[in-house]
Amino acid sequence: MYEVEVKVPADLEAVRDRLETREATQLGSVVQADTYYNAPHRDFAETDEALRIRSERPADGGAETRVTYKGPLVDEETKTREEFETGIEDAETTDAILTGLGFEPTATVRKDRERFSLDGYTVTLDSVDDVGEYVEVETEVAAEADLETAREGAYDVLERLGLDPDDQLRTSYLGLLLES
Amino acid sequence: MYEVEVKVPADLEAVRDRLETREATQLGSVVQADTYYNAPHRDFAETDEALRIRSERPADGGAETRVTYKGPLVDEETKTREEFETGIEDAETTDAILTGLGFEPTATVRKDRERFSLDGYTVTLDSVDDVGEYVEVETEVAAEADLETAREGAYDVLERLGLDPDDQLRTSYLGLLLES
Repeated sequence: MYEVEVKVPADLEAVRDRLETREATQLGSVVQADTYYNAPHRDFAETDEALRIRSERPADGGAETRVTYKGPLVDEETKTREEFETGIEDAETTDAILTGLGFEPTATVRKDRERFSLDGYTVTLDSVDDVGEYVEVETEVAAEADLETAREGAYDVLERLGLDPDDQLRTSYLGLLLES
Repeated sequence: MYEVEVKVPADLEAVRDRLETREATQLGSVVQADTYYNAPHRDFAETDEALRIRSERPADGGAETRVTYKGPLVDEETKTREEFETGIEDAETTDAILTGLGFEPTATVRKDRERFSLDGYTVTLDSVDDVGEYVEVETEVAAEADLETAREGAYDVLERLGLDPDDQLRTSYLGLLLES
């Protein structure tokens, strides 16, 4: 599976109107709090790894906590990396375990996410605390050869929502938060 | 809470008979597989820390996986240490996360545990792969002042089960496995 993901800054109110006009399907909204950790024995900013605890609270109740490790790039060309994620019972205890082991929380990214489905793409409206408002358009393709077409399709979706693909941003929310 | 725990090698068949004679209450049995990890940035054998993934499968079905971190002793006198434990969804993924972070599995302790309740104590019959058969007698007390009495009580329970408190072993199953 290859993922195409395009992110641009946006006025969410305006995008929401466009999504409504185009009868996009609402997929629900969640509040996410992502805490990122750095390691005691290597600097993840240099190795391009990430360790994250994500707490997700859907608008319709319930809550889920997951821990994710993203390994360094194994292929520069395709930007492929190993990623492992599993559910955990309790975020605070997991934080205590990581802290005990010497890992240090570097930042917490909090955001409200609303997801829609439009023309085969997932459109996510992100309101990120202390960072700003962004729209992500994404999809997955099975073959590498289909990546370019999928990316063009994502740009088309952005334009239909009144957004400019040239505004595309490659910095993660964590990166934007740390820069702010 | 203070924990009293006494462990002796035993012939489990004989102990099981004694427990039956004394009408001990059966608390159920589980199969436990504990994988211990060492850290890339310090040696847990030296710091007296432990990081463990425990997979527990009760005889009556279901399965549970937990990750536990035991910090170094914070008080030599009372052998107090910080301990954090939380449930995790998937043992294999958690292993992949730890391994990706540079932690290395040192050993896996597998055992069948049968638990009984007798005279206010929990009696556990452990059959540990590649280590042997052991009986643990344990209880908890609220005040440090009650520790000695509770320990004497545990010795009494051992004697009632035909076991000798002088055979007491302070080495963990992990330690015994690594010595074997």
